[in-house]
Amino acid sequence: MSLDSRRAVSDLQELRALTADDHGAQRIAWSPMWLKARAWFQTKLQGLPIEHHYDAAGNSWTTLHGDSDRTLILGSHLDSVPNGGWLDGALGVLASLAVLRGIAEEFNGKPPITIRLVDWADEEGARFGRSLFGSSAFAGTHTIEADRSRTDRDGVCLEDALKKCGINVDRISESAIERGKAGAYLELHIEQGPVLESMQLPLGIVLGTKGVERHAITFHGQEAHSGSTPMAVRRDALAAAAKLALEIRPIARKHPDSVATMGSVKTFPGIVTAVVGRCETTLDMRDLDATVLASMLAEARAASERFAAEERCTVEWSKIWNIEPIPFDPQLIEFCDEAIRETAGTSHRLPSGPLHDAAEVSRAGIPTVMMFTQSLAGLSHNKAEDTKIEHLELAVQAFDRLARKTMTWLSEKEKAV
Amino acid sequence: MSLDSRRAVSDLQELRALTADDHGAQRIAWSPMWLKARAWFQTKLQGLPIEHHYDAAGNSWTTLHGDSDRTLILGSHLDSVPNGGWLDGALGVLASLAVLRGIAEEFNGKPPITIRLVDWADEEGARFGRSLFGSSAFAGTHTIEADRSRTDRDGVCLEDALKKCGINVDRISESAIERGKAGAYLELHIEQGPVLESMQLPLGIVLGTKGVERHAITFHGQEAHSGSTPMAVRRDALAAAAKLALEIRPIARKHPDSVATMGSVKTFPGIVTAVVGRCETTLDMRDLDATVLASMLAEARAASERFAAEERCTVEWSKIWNIEPIPFDPQLIEFCDEAIRETAGTSHRLPSGPLHDAAEVSRAGIPTVMMFTQSLAGLSHNKAEDTKIEHLELAVQAFDRLARKTMTWLSEKEKAV
Repeated sequence: MSLDSRRAVSDLQELRALTADDHGAQRIAWSPMWLKARAWFQTKLQGLPIEHHYDAAGNSWTTLHGDSDRTLILGSHLDSVPNGGWLDGALGVLASLAVLRGIAEEFNGKPPITIRLVDWADEEGARFGRSLFGSSAFAGTHTIEADRSRTDRDGVCLEDALKKCGINVDRISESAIERGKAGAYLELHIEQGPVLESMQLPLGIVLGTKGVERHAITFHGQEAHSGSTPMAVRRDALAAAAKLALEIRPIARKHPDSVATMGSVKTFPGIVTAVVGRCETTLDMRDLDATVLASMLAEARAASERFAAEERCTVEWSKIWNIEPIPFDPQLIEFCDEAIRETAGTSHRLPSGPLHDAAEVSRAGIPTVMMFTQSLAGLSHNKAEDTKIEHLELAVQAFDRLARKTMTWLSEKEKAV
Repeated sequence: MSLDSRRAVSDLQELRALTADDHGAQRIAWSPMWLKARAWFQTKLQGLPIEHHYDAAGNSWTTLHGDSDRTLILGSHLDSVPNGGWLDGALGVLASLAVLRGIAEEFNGKPPITIRLVDWADEEGARFGRSLFGSSAFAGTHTIEADRSRTDRDGVCLEDALKKCGINVDRISESAIERGKAGAYLELHIEQGPVLESMQLPLGIVLGTKGVERHAITFHGQEAHSGSTPMAVRRDALAAAAKLALEIRPIARKHPDSVATMGSVKTFPGIVTAVVGRCETTLDMRDLDATVLASMLAEARAASERFAAEERCTVEWSKIWNIEPIPFDPQLIEFCDEAIRETAGTSHRLPSGPLHDAAEVSRAGIPTVMMFTQSLAGLSHNKAEDTKIEHLELAVQAFDRLARKTMTWLSEKEKAV
C-alpha cells in the first residue's frame, strides 16, 4: 500500500500553523481564515489526477474518477469553532486526502470505483448557529427558509455572508446532485469525549449518532422576601429545578450510553434577598435508541411535574430542538471493526453524542459509518484539544483499511449488477 | 384619649395619591418625589406646638418638648423602593404623627416627657444599595468611608446626590447628637410577611431583628460536552449546587423561625450543550438567635464541602455581608404585648426577618421595640402591598397605647432620679 500516514499528520500541522493563533484554530465558516484554509487545501491537490469544484451549498468536492461511477465518499470539514482545536474536522479531511492520494497512486489514477473527498461547508454553525449546513443541503434536510435571516454577532445575516462566499441560498438544495451514485460515506473524527482514553484504546467504531431531545423547562413559584417568608409557606421555583437537576442523572444512568444534562439555570429575580419566583432551565438528553430516548424524556417530564407539585409550583416545557437517533450501516460497522482490529489489535463500539455530517449523509440513504480516534482528556472545541501523534497515524492507517474494504465491497456490488 | 386613628389612614391615602403612579409608590430617597413627600409631611405639622429640623444625615425630627428632656422617640421612614407599596415606612411615620398629635392635644402642648417623631433618611437603600442610611448615622454604625463613592444606575455618586439634598457626607456622624436623652424608641411597621395573616391576627410584637449571614458560594467542576461526556466521568458543578439548594431547607427547618434562601444561581458556560463547569450561588440565612445562626452557617458550609466532594468539584465561600441578631427591649416587649391585647384581644410574638431602622436605634443602646400589623398575602416592596383599613386603625390605636405606656414608664424613671 502506498499510504503515507505521516504526511496526513504533517498536513494537519501545516494547517494549524496557517490558521491558528494563540487562542486556537480560527477557521470559522464563511470567514477569510476559512477561505484561506480551503485555498491551502486546493494547493495540496496539485499533481493529483482529480477534478475539484464547490457545489451549490459551498461543499468542496475532490473527485478521483474510477472505472465505475459508483462512488465511495470520504470526508469531514475544515471549519472550526472560534478558539477551536487543530483536529476537529481537519483530521477527517486530511486523512481522506492521504487515502485518496494512496489509491490514486496505486491504481495509476483510475481505481475500480470513483473516490470522492468532501469538505462540508459550515459543520460547526459557529457564526450563525446553524450546524451541518452543507451536509444538510446535500441530504435535502436543510431548513434554509428558516435559516436565511439568521444573523451573526455583528448583525450580518446568513444570506448576505454566504453571498460574499459565492453562495446563493435559494440554490443550496442543488447540492443534492452530488449524491450521484454514492454507495458509501466514511468519516474519521476525533472522539471529543473521554471514553476511548479511559479504555486505553486508540480507535473506536461509531455505531451512529445519538438522538437528541433539547427542551427549555421553566418552573413558576412565588417570589418572596428571604427574611420575612417562613420556610413552610414558600413556593421556591429553584427547589423544584434543583430536584430535577439531580433526578435526570439516575434517569440517564439506567441505560449504558444515555446522557442527560441541565446546562443552564437562570433564577428570577435572582437576588440574594428573594426566594426564586421563576427558574428557567435547559435539558439535553441523548441516546442511540429512540425508544430509550423517548422513555427518558417521559420520565424527566413526569419528574418535573412531580417536583413542581411538591413545591407548589407549576412547570412549563418548550421544545428547543430534537433529532432522531441515526444508526450507521451494519456492514460498514463490521468493516470498521475489522480495520481497527487489524491496525490496533482491539476495537470498541460506541455511539457518538455529538452530531456529525455523517448523520446527514446517512439520512440521505447512503450507507455510512464513522471511525473515532482518542481525544486526550476528552477535550475539544478548545485549543487544548489533542491526540497522540502515534494515534493519529494509526487512525489514518485504519481509515485507509476501512476505505479499501468498502471500495472492494462497492466494486463487488457493481460487478454483481 | 384624643387619638384620631382614622386621620392616620386618610393621611396615608393622601400621601399615596401624591407620590404613587400606576406602578406603585415612587418615594425613592434623595429623589424629587421623596423631597415632595417630606415637604407634604411638614404641612401636616402646621398648628402643632412642635419644633422641626433635619439633622446632619438628613433625618427629619419633629419635637414636642415636655416637662422633662427625657425623650420618647417614635418613627419610621417615608422613603420607598421604586414601584413600592403605600404602607412600608409611611404607616409608622403617620401613625406616630397621630400619636404625637393626640398627646400634644391632651397635655396642652406640654407632656411630662419630650416626644419626638423621626422620619429616617433612606431606610431602603434603593438608589445606592446602602439601607438604614440615616439611622446608622444616628447610631454611629454608619460606613460612610466605604459608601461615599457608591453610584446609582446613572453613575451619580452617593456623595454628590446627597450634596444636592443639602447633606455633607463628611458630617453625617453629627446625627448622633439627636440621641440626646432618648429613653425609648418605638416603631410600627407592616409585617411584610405572611405570619400574622396565617394566624388571623391583626397585630404582633416584634422580638427583634434576625441576624443575617449572606454569602456567595461557587462550585467549580469541569465544563464538558453534553453529548460526548458519559455521566460517570462528569464533574457537574450544578449538581453540587442543586444538592445545597435542597439541603439548606432541612437545616433551617430544625429551628422554628430560621430561614435559609438560595436566591441566585448562575451557570457557566450556561449553554444547553455543556455540563456546568462553574456554578455561582448565593445563600442568605437568618435567625434571632446568634448561636442558632452560627450553627446553621456551619452546617451549610459542611454540606457544601460534602456535596463538592461527592461531585468531584471544589467549593469556595465568600462573605457578602452579615449582621448579628438584635433583640428588642424586654420591658418594651411586655408593654407592646399589653397594648395589643388591650386593643385586639390576642397578641403574638415574632422575630423580624427584614431589617429595620429600629435595629440601628437598638444598637445605639436605646431601649427599642417594634409592632407589626398584618400584610395581606405577605406582600411588600410591591404596588400590591396592602393591609385592611380596620387593621390599620387597630394598629394606630395599639401603637398609641404602647406609646402611652412607655411615656408613663419614662416619666416614672425620671421622677425616680
